[in-house]
Amino acid sequence: MLERLEQQMQFILEIDKVKKVVRRNLLTDGTRYENDAEHSWHLAVMAFILLEHVDKKEEIELLKVIKMVVIHDLVEIDAGDTYCYDEIGIMDQHSREVKAAERIFSLLPPDQTAHFRDIWDEFEEGKTPEAQFAAMLDRMQPVLLNYTSEGRSWRLNGITRDQVLKRNARIKDSSQAVWDYVVKLIDQAVEKGYLNA
Amino acid sequence: MLERLEQQMQFILEIDKVKKVVRRNLLTDGTRYENDAEHSWHLAVMAFILLEHVDKKEEIELLKVIKMVVIHDLVEIDAGDTYCYDEIGIMDQHSREVKAAERIFSLLPPDQTAHFRDIWDEFEEGKTPEAQFAAMLDRMQPVLLNYTSEGRSWRLNGITRDQVLKRNARIKDSSQAVWDYVVKLIDQAVEKGYLNA
Repeated sequence: MLERLEQQMQFILEIDKVKKVVRRNLLTDGTRYENDAEHSWHLAVMAFILLEHVDKKEEIELLKVIKMVVIHDLVEIDAGDTYCYDEIGIMDQHSREVKAAERIFSLLPPDQTAHFRDIWDEFEEGKTPEAQFAAMLDRMQPVLLNYTSEGRSWRLNGITRDQVLKRNARIKDSSQAVWDYVVKLIDQAVEKGYLNA
Repeated sequence: MLERLEQQMQFILEIDKVKKVVRRNLLTDGTRYENDAEHSWHLAVMAFILLEHVDKKEEIELLKVIKMVVIHDLVEIDAGDTYCYDEIGIMDQHSREVKAAERIFSLLPPDQTAHFRDIWDEFEEGKTPEAQFAAMLDRMQPVLLNYTSEGRSWRLNGITRDQVLKRNARIKDSSQAVWDYVVKLIDQAVEKGYLNA
């Protein structure tokens, strides 16, 4: 049992590195870029608050969603953050991340390695209500932050309304209400000059 | 429902500020101080991994623990981070944090305000197995990070072994195995000169 605890502690220390993986969206106050740990924390709180808006909410095992959102970006410790509008980076993103998942989750005792890997695979496949809800949170959170920081990251990267709509369309697989909200936000962003038409 | 969603989004944006609340412990690589969002994320992952070591694990509702750890530091948006070895700051810490809890949680719709406030109060009271487990994670995580960053924060603040043992004694209310591990780590820290005897 002591050896098991020691192994778990090594994993806990290893994943500290995700706090250094910088994302492409700014904090709401626009002072700096967000990192993966902050992003993942934000999604976990949002999951508790927004579950009621999920169309299939009766089918959701919330604990699984939380697990997904807090571990989904650990692979970026090795694979780095791939900007969601980087069409070249996205091409080999999944294979780079699978390799990372193999290394990182295997630091845990074997039963936990398998469990976390299953959770991560389910998130990546995006088919279950839990994976769709987690993906909805993962998509909408940067939209909120980009809007609130006056679209500075969108503008810096020359992103257009169509790109944002396409990238975020998966939100409606989980919640029509949230999707309607996000579309309205995107349109307001264009009106205010935060996002290219 | 749209008004409710709008209110929830305002809360989600407000709590972004917890990413700017800087703590007194360094990241494992020693390059900078950790913030509250990163810390809270780390505790959430640890909860999933370490539940098996909790003495009363059969009594634990894990979802409640996760809720506790992801929201426990939101009050620091207003009240600031009180260094756990600051004997003066600790005197009025609870009253400052209660005031903050009143403002921040009340940004949510009333039913969610009440629910999150109950969870936070239960964490603060520290009596249930869930609150004890959450407190265990909250205590041990900075010990791990301080040890790994060669005790720089402990040394900068002139902290002693006795202070660290006293501060972390609550760990054993939740898990004897984790407490034994932490005591060993503290003793190794003294041996290596990371912590004053």
